[in-house]
Amino acid sequence: MITLTTDFGLGGPYVGEMKVAMLRVNPNARLIDVTHSIRRHSVVEASFVMEQVVKYSPEGTVHVGVIDPGVGTSRRAVIIEGEQFLVVPDNGLATLPMKHIKPRRAYEIDFERIRRFTGWRISSTFHGRDVFGPAGALLEAGIEPGQIGTEIPLESLVRLNVEPRREGDDWLLTVLYIDDFGNVILNLENYGTLRAVELPDLGVRVSYLDTYGQVKPGELLALPGSHDYLEIAVNQGSAAERLGLKVGDEVRVKLIGGD
Amino acid sequence: MITLTTDFGLGGPYVGEMKVAMLRVNPNARLIDVTHSIRRHSVVEASFVMEQVVKYSPEGTVHVGVIDPGVGTSRRAVIIEGEQFLVVPDNGLATLPMKHIKPRRAYEIDFERIRRFTGWRISSTFHGRDVFGPAGALLEAGIEPGQIGTEIPLESLVRLNVEPRREGDDWLLTVLYIDDFGNVILNLENYGTLRAVELPDLGVRVSYLDTYGQVKPGELLALPGSHDYLEIAVNQGSAAERLGLKVGDEVRVKLIGGD
Amino acid sequence: MITLTTDFGLGGPYVGEMKVAMLRVNPNARLIDVTHSIRRHSVVEASFVMEQVVKYSPEGTVHVGVIDPGVGTSRRAVIIEGEQFLVVPDNGLATLPMKHIKPRRAYEIDFERIRRFTGWRISSTFHGRDVFGPAGALLEAGIEPGQIGTEIPLESLVRLNVEPRREGDDWLLTVLYIDDFGNVILNLENYGTLRAVELPDLGVRVSYLDTYGQVKPGELLALPGSHDYLEIAVNQGSAAERLGLKVGDEVRVKLIGGD
Repeated sequence: MITLTTDFGLGGPYVGEMKVAMLRVNPNARLIDVTHSIRRHSVVEASFVMEQVVKYSPEGTVHVGVIDPGVGTSRRAVIIEGEQFLVVPDNGLATLPMKHIKPRRAYEIDFERIRRFTGWRISSTFHGRDVFGPAGALLEAGIEPGQIGTEIPLESLVRLNVEPRREGDDWLLTVLYIDDFGNVILNLENYGTLRAVELPDLGVRVSYLDTYGQVKPGELLALPGSHDYLEIAVNQGSAAERLGLKVGDEVRVKLIGGD
Repeated sequence: MITLTTDFGLGGPYVGEMKVAMLRVNPNARLIDVTHSIRRHSVVEASFVMEQVVKYSPEGTVHVGVIDPGVGTSRRAVIIEGEQFLVVPDNGLATLPMKHIKPRRAYEIDFERIRRFTGWRISSTFHGRDVFGPAGALLEAGIEPGQIGTEIPLESLVRLNVEPRREGDDWLLTVLYIDDFGNVILNLENYGTLRAVELPDLGVRVSYLDTYGQVKPGELLALPGSHDYLEIAVNQGSAAERLGLKVGDEVRVKLIGGD
Repeated sequence: MITLTTDFGLGGPYVGEMKVAMLRVNPNARLIDVTHSIRRHSVVEASFVMEQVVKYSPEGTVHVGVIDPGVGTSRRAVIIEGEQFLVVPDNGLATLPMKHIKPRRAYEIDFERIRRFTGWRISSTFHGRDVFGPAGALLEAGIEPGQIGTEIPLESLVRLNVEPRREGDDWLLTVLYIDDFGNVILNLENYGTLRAVELPDLGVRVSYLDTYGQVKPGELLALPGSHDYLEIAVNQGSAAERLGLKVGDEVRVKLIGGD
């Protein structure tokens, strides 16, 4: 099984080209579209999305992610091998999904070896079709990563700076993701029992509850969400609009503990 | 074969998470995306969409629908068994597709039994991934509904109020759906031979024809559409915009009969 | 393998209906969504998209394309047989993909014979579900085109006028496609070595380079793109917006040759 996460959009030939190219290389590949609507070049958002999918995927799944502002430059194309595989540009995209695959080894993909497998030249602008897709399809067919890449140190991989920071009693958190409903997902996990959450710079203090329906439509709340990260939401409304937040924004947060 | 109809949108991890979770439970499941772009919380629109897909699906197909404003409240998660299966929240979503599956039995899904099959806890906000998807995947693997749910009376299911009403010679009809082209679909079937259709409150009278191309571009017409429901359209334009109509609106309609 | 390219949009039942109808006719069909977001009725855009997908598809692939403003009129539904198959309305859609399949024969699809295979009546408004989809599914199941259609001369097929034209030293080119990133794709291939490209009517002259990253963010460039057609782009921006261009526009172009 191969999952696909890109910022190609749905209106053009790109997604189709990548998929038929993968099936030409490996006719038995099973392709699962995660999303092709990542905001253009938003590596943080895509890293979050791939993390969630990795958490629920069976062992051995191959995840191809193509959010690639550096295509055509010298950024590396990499494979990360663990309980699952990640096939991505080396631009930080692997940061969050890597936390869940017990990574064992990383490889830089060798374009010339990919080209020998596919039989077509590698363009300088569309590595989804020419490099990442075929690499994923080959891995799923049982090709070893070492046959299409060269081992590199795991520590050499580019990482996003998405760790939560403390400042006195406050947390400085980053908005990892805003879903289509406007729910705001912050980079804090395992925060223990809470009663309430305060966002002092936004002048907001909300109850920490189990589910949207526990407040009236239109009211703010904090909740565990479905992704283990702290989430701010409005029942049947958009918390992102209400609070004026977007992906990558930093938010000061006070956690009001439980009993 | 399992079809998927949701309001998750295409930009986030939700669709991908649901699909990989289903394939983890049943690696051989065949997943068909119907749409993930139902207007948020629009149970009427989704019920219409699922009905159309059910009408053309082979016997035994499992249809998973997740439009679920009541997630986390006490609304039931149900399976309806007939010539095909529906796996949906008990909020009226099944109303229109049920007309075509000769329903025999209904079951309330037992969360604890689902959890034992999947091995992960059930969140309070994402039952697509944690309940409905896995339940559909299990049914497709040959698990009996009684193994993951408890039988409930078919009559106890929540129904939408989408029956057409008479008022003297007029019909009071509901807009079930507006497609991406702006065609307006009304809840009237089997209306016999027509010459014309009048919408007196909108000051409009249009011919009833076979196909869009029988009027000039930009002109209104009524036609049988492709869904057996009465449809109002503009050739190469949007009837919904022209008439100012949206899903759920009530419209007064006079049918002008044929010879 | 069957690819699907349509302008149905993603919000309604249309895509789902077509897919389940195809699987009812041929339960083993492998369906690959290319896009359902072609701009409504844009035959040029869809022809370009199908061409790109055909170029990377394995032999024998069946491509179903439904951009069909003439549905319900007397336009023909056709199958074009070559190294791959095209199943499309005869409205020019096949023009660009045909260049890559070595076409051998064309057939007009016979609705009555399709209906006998499917068992359901053919609507006058939704031939994707009732004609093109089932025809593609039958071809993939090994049915010969002659069993569901009547041979017609290849020369009788409708063609788009998308050949580049000369005017003195200038080229008059057509915008074939604008991708989701705003990159502008022009109908010129095999143009040799270039140093620069001038668009005199727009007062623009840009360098011809290998890749977006070779200019600063926000700057214009010309490049080979990933589709062999001449492409005008802005690094991390939209060339279509910058230049005010849309699909189908004609642009005067001067090519400044290499050494």
